[in-house]
Amino acid sequence: MKKPVIAITMGDPAGIGPEIILKALNRTEVMDACRPLIVGDPSVLAAAARHLDSVPSLKRIQRIDQIKETDDQAYLYAASDLAGAQVTPGQPDPAFGPAVLRAIRLAAGWALQRKVQAMVTCPISKEIIQAGRPHFTGHTEFLARLARTRTFGMMLAGERLKVSLVTIHLPLKKALRVLTQNKIRQTIQLTHQTLTGWFGIQAPRLALAGLNPHAGEKGAFGTEEETILQPAVTEAQSRGIDLSGPYPADTLFYWAAQGRYDAVIALYHDQGLIPLKLLHFDQAVNLTMGLPFIRTSVDHGTAFDIAGQGLANPDSLVAAILLAADFTRRTPSWP
Amino acid sequence: MKKPVIAITMGDPAGIGPEIILKALNRTEVMDACRPLIVGDPSVLAAAARHLDSVPSLKRIQRIDQIKETDDQAYLYAASDLAGAQVTPGQPDPAFGPAVLRAIRLAAGWALQRKVQAMVTCPISKEIIQAGRPHFTGHTEFLARLARTRTFGMMLAGERLKVSLVTIHLPLKKALRVLTQNKIRQTIQLTHQTLTGWFGIQAPRLALAGLNPHAGEKGAFGTEEETILQPAVTEAQSRGIDLSGPYPADTLFYWAAQGRYDAVIALYHDQGLIPLKLLHFDQAVNLTMGLPFIRTSVDHGTAFDIAGQGLANPDSLVAAILLAADFTRRTPSWP
Repeated sequence: MKKPVIAITMGDPAGIGPEIILKALNRTEVMDACRPLIVGDPSVLAAAARHLDSVPSLKRIQRIDQIKETDDQAYLYAASDLAGAQVTPGQPDPAFGPAVLRAIRLAAGWALQRKVQAMVTCPISKEIIQAGRPHFTGHTEFLARLARTRTFGMMLAGERLKVSLVTIHLPLKKALRVLTQNKIRQTIQLTHQTLTGWFGIQAPRLALAGLNPHAGEKGAFGTEEETILQPAVTEAQSRGIDLSGPYPADTLFYWAAQGRYDAVIALYHDQGLIPLKLLHFDQAVNLTMGLPFIRTSVDHGTAFDIAGQGLANPDSLVAAILLAADFTRRTPSWP
Repeated sequence: MKKPVIAITMGDPAGIGPEIILKALNRTEVMDACRPLIVGDPSVLAAAARHLDSVPSLKRIQRIDQIKETDDQAYLYAASDLAGAQVTPGQPDPAFGPAVLRAIRLAAGWALQRKVQAMVTCPISKEIIQAGRPHFTGHTEFLARLARTRTFGMMLAGERLKVSLVTIHLPLKKALRVLTQNKIRQTIQLTHQTLTGWFGIQAPRLALAGLNPHAGEKGAFGTEEETILQPAVTEAQSRGIDLSGPYPADTLFYWAAQGRYDAVIALYHDQGLIPLKLLHFDQAVNLTMGLPFIRTSVDHGTAFDIAGQGLANPDSLVAAILLAADFTRRTPSWP
């Protein structure tokens, strides 16, 4: 079987992206699973390579169609040329924002055109991008806009726990205000699709987390379980989705990690990410549900504090690449 | 050294309390650590004993001062006599409510008078008690009232994680409304006292969890970190408490479990209990901070669904007894 081509964007040039990319390409399992296409800056990558004992070989291409079916290697496409720009690891600069975005746009464009079979993103700094684009809110929303997708969501996947989020980057008070049956239904639907399509789980077992202590204890500690959550569960069940709940969140994640459910639908950021990171710190994969192409990501940030010191751990990136490669085997995204 | 006497209340007679008590008394480490005084119902305990291969011996006493300094055994004090009342495991009955409360009152009274050195509670059913006492909200509040304690709080302690809660059994929306600097200060103070006094940690390292995603990300995702949490941290530091934060909750619990902090102060029920139960399901100990005596408890419920079948796991009760016994070694609660 030919290996999928996976576009990997370099992320912030002053972050750990360049380093973890090179480290990931040194892993046999990555090269066995795909043909990585690095979309980033050659001089930044060359500088990062100086700290490594072993440097992976990259074939530079100028056009996407230079990737030959018979090839089996890693590629590099220059999204920018920051050679003279004095990129110092750990010192982000808004001047690099356009280069970062260009890499993401290129990779997403190829993914939409089926020139690549998936894309994987390395971390960027929201503040750096916002200096030039004040309304930028992150990879996920940016990619959704490029793909003209209105219904999308975030899932975090670790070996023992998969969590999708109904609300993401909102103040907790606001998240509670915007929690509607419709939003929950959307996330249920996306989660079900993602597990059946990308993960290849035929009849995924989903569970919905409660909002209040003890899932409201029959109304004693809150009413959202009865007014919003239970109806959403009933509605999903009527569409044939194997969803149960709402369950007390403090026991649900334990049972999910024990294998009782394939994924948990969490209502707000920390509800899902506290258990996910506790079990899978720096090992989980972030993926965007609802896009017309496969996109996975590391689950950590730019880590400016350790950039350029050879300390960065590529595990999350390796996991993101391997998961994306796995998804391509089940998804009709080949040209 | 003489062993502390620890009063253990039986909890709901139709729950797993009777069974886990007998199982716990069969553990050498429990009998090595203390002289347990079971405060419960003799006939219910006798019925529970029928399902066990090995039944611990209990010396029945009629008055608390029958416990001799030179004795080294387990005792039973009859708080009730439900012999003719047809107690069926798994079938709770509001008629048993007064017996349940009487056991708790007796144990708390002895603890206040230093007749026992600590008390440990087995699970009760709030609904059952509420049938006769509509305003009953739980062990913690009941004990605080008996002890005339106004400032108290709940901590859950597992091997890797200790968590104390600023708000407990409130709807999440309401918890966010009542979250004040004063409440947080109180919990910080209680946590510090509990760790230094009962746990014997000289300079405990505390961390405060943030409320919003990424602890608000400098105001982008919420302002409580800046308006309420940061001032509470500064204030505690000015009183010499080693407290840091507020930290993003999704990474904080990971770092605490790695040993970076002795306890985490969580702002609402599920924030603290999701990570606690994920790491220490049915193994953690619930303890009441601020009482004038030592009180620990199991961290699970009555488990009516498995009561009377010999399936109940006594680990949390064993942990609660051992922790209480450990506390007595550092606390001036001997008569």
